[in-house]
Amino acid sequence: MKLKKVVIVGPGLIGGSIGKTLLTNKLSEKIVAVVRRESAVDEIIKAGAATSATLDLELALTGAEVVVLCTPVSVIADKIDSIENLISKECLVTDVGSTKKSIVQKLEKIFENKALFIGSHPIAGTEKRGVSAATDRLFHNAVCVLTPTGKTPPAAIARAHSFWKILGLKCIEMSPEKHDKILARISHLPHLAAYALVRAVTAGADIDMNAKLVGGGFLDTTRIASSPANLWADIFVDNKEEILSLAKEFIREINSIVDALKREDKNTLQKLLEESKTKRDKIIEYLKK
Amino acid sequence: MKLKKVVIVGPGLIGGSIGKTLLTNKLSEKIVAVVRRESAVDEIIKAGAATSATLDLELALTGAEVVVLCTPVSVIADKIDSIENLISKECLVTDVGSTKKSIVQKLEKIFENKALFIGSHPIAGTEKRGVSAATDRLFHNAVCVLTPTGKTPPAAIARAHSFWKILGLKCIEMSPEKHDKILARISHLPHLAAYALVRAVTAGADIDMNAKLVGGGFLDTTRIASSPANLWADIFVDNKEEILSLAKEFIREINSIVDALKREDKNTLQKLLEESKTKRDKIIEYLKK
Repeated sequence: MKLKKVVIVGPGLIGGSIGKTLLTNKLSEKIVAVVRRESAVDEIIKAGAATSATLDLELALTGAEVVVLCTPVSVIADKIDSIENLISKECLVTDVGSTKKSIVQKLEKIFENKALFIGSHPIAGTEKRGVSAATDRLFHNAVCVLTPTGKTPPAAIARAHSFWKILGLKCIEMSPEKHDKILARISHLPHLAAYALVRAVTAGADIDMNAKLVGGGFLDTTRIASSPANLWADIFVDNKEEILSLAKEFIREINSIVDALKREDKNTLQKLLEESKTKRDKIIEYLKK
Repeated sequence: MKLKKVVIVGPGLIGGSIGKTLLTNKLSEKIVAVVRRESAVDEIIKAGAATSATLDLELALTGAEVVVLCTPVSVIADKIDSIENLISKECLVTDVGSTKKSIVQKLEKIFENKALFIGSHPIAGTEKRGVSAATDRLFHNAVCVLTPTGKTPPAAIARAHSFWKILGLKCIEMSPEKHDKILARISHLPHLAAYALVRAVTAGADIDMNAKLVGGGFLDTTRIASSPANLWADIFVDNKEEILSLAKEFIREINSIVDALKREDKNTLQKLLEESKTKRDKIIEYLKK
């Protein structure tokens, strides 16, 4: 079942990868990218991330079957508001934001009775950004969280499932609130930790000397600290309460290890590390299933 | 220049990989592994990590040209003490410990005027353990830190350089103290962070639900929390002062981010994350050189 027209608003790593996957696998007749800079038009086409690219949001949206919003909601909301009549009521509209509660609230208001809106979060990505890092392999075996609410039209849920499925993702559903709680744990806190870790490791240190001895441990624990700072500052603020409460828990756990270390209490220390290893290994086992 | 007899005492991931690399590349006539359990003899030979394996340390050491100590110093020190006469004064003795100050002090006392001792730390490894994880690719392009002191015989330095070089490592020299300071930053603190992060992320959470949504961010930031707990409890205690001071710095950095987040001060938040990203990217650039 081939799509007729998919519009990707603000394609970066995720949007670009959606476009590339659709194009490589011939999943849609038209794939239109909406960009903000003239120079991005060529970039998108060269990257093979769309069949056409334009700065004209109105033009792009006309006749769209699926619209994927990849820009920050703060950027898109005003524009979308003024062009409501261009989208068909049967058009599936979704976003790819890393937080869902506030985004879904805003977008639901805009699209209620005007289009089939549902929030999505394809859990895929790297620390890189932009269309140049996009790839048609990004979603291979990835999970997409759909966040329906009481206001979500059933047709939006069904359409979103099949849209992400043809891109190679497996969808699971949960409320926007539950999504933000879980993502704070498995993604947002690890990002905060990685950013803080790089700062602590490099504070007052000879970076060249450190770099000489850097092994996989430092590189892996801090990989996501190379993620775009503006994007993550937004995510942190948007999911503030959950992240603050987890950061407190994180400091508590660091202090348990620190306290055992101060006392040179090897038994407690080993027990703390062992419990951590066991829990991680359990997650790895789960993923292998 | 082929070696005649290399003895690897307590081969695990590192010692096993030394043996495998020597064997695969035919770099030594004899590669003798000294193990503690009878069952390990077969395991070592099957893994291709030695030409022979034995529980008899005395037998193994006779005629050794190079001895690599891979067991914890606390285990080996007593034994070595009683067999000092079996090692030739021209024998290169080194260890592969992840901390150097206390180990080098102990081993220098034992081997002074009895063998050519120098501390080594080949910076390579994974979160896995044991000979079964050993590979002849582990040291490819890796760095080995040699930690000579005022007591180190010049011949030990020269011999250690050429030993690690034939295994594929590039040696750099620094004092044991400097080694421990730098490694606390780029390895020990990241391990502490990873162990604490797994604990915080999984505390009171539904692990199966978390696992469903786990992406590369969590997996990478916590990979080294799957490292052997007993090994790392030892390293933490051995490098206690450095690690405690860095853990304090780490908590300070977490709190800078937390404070900016509490105030929803996006500018400061973005600046903190951006500085972190820039420093990490600088290290990555350095490694590409």
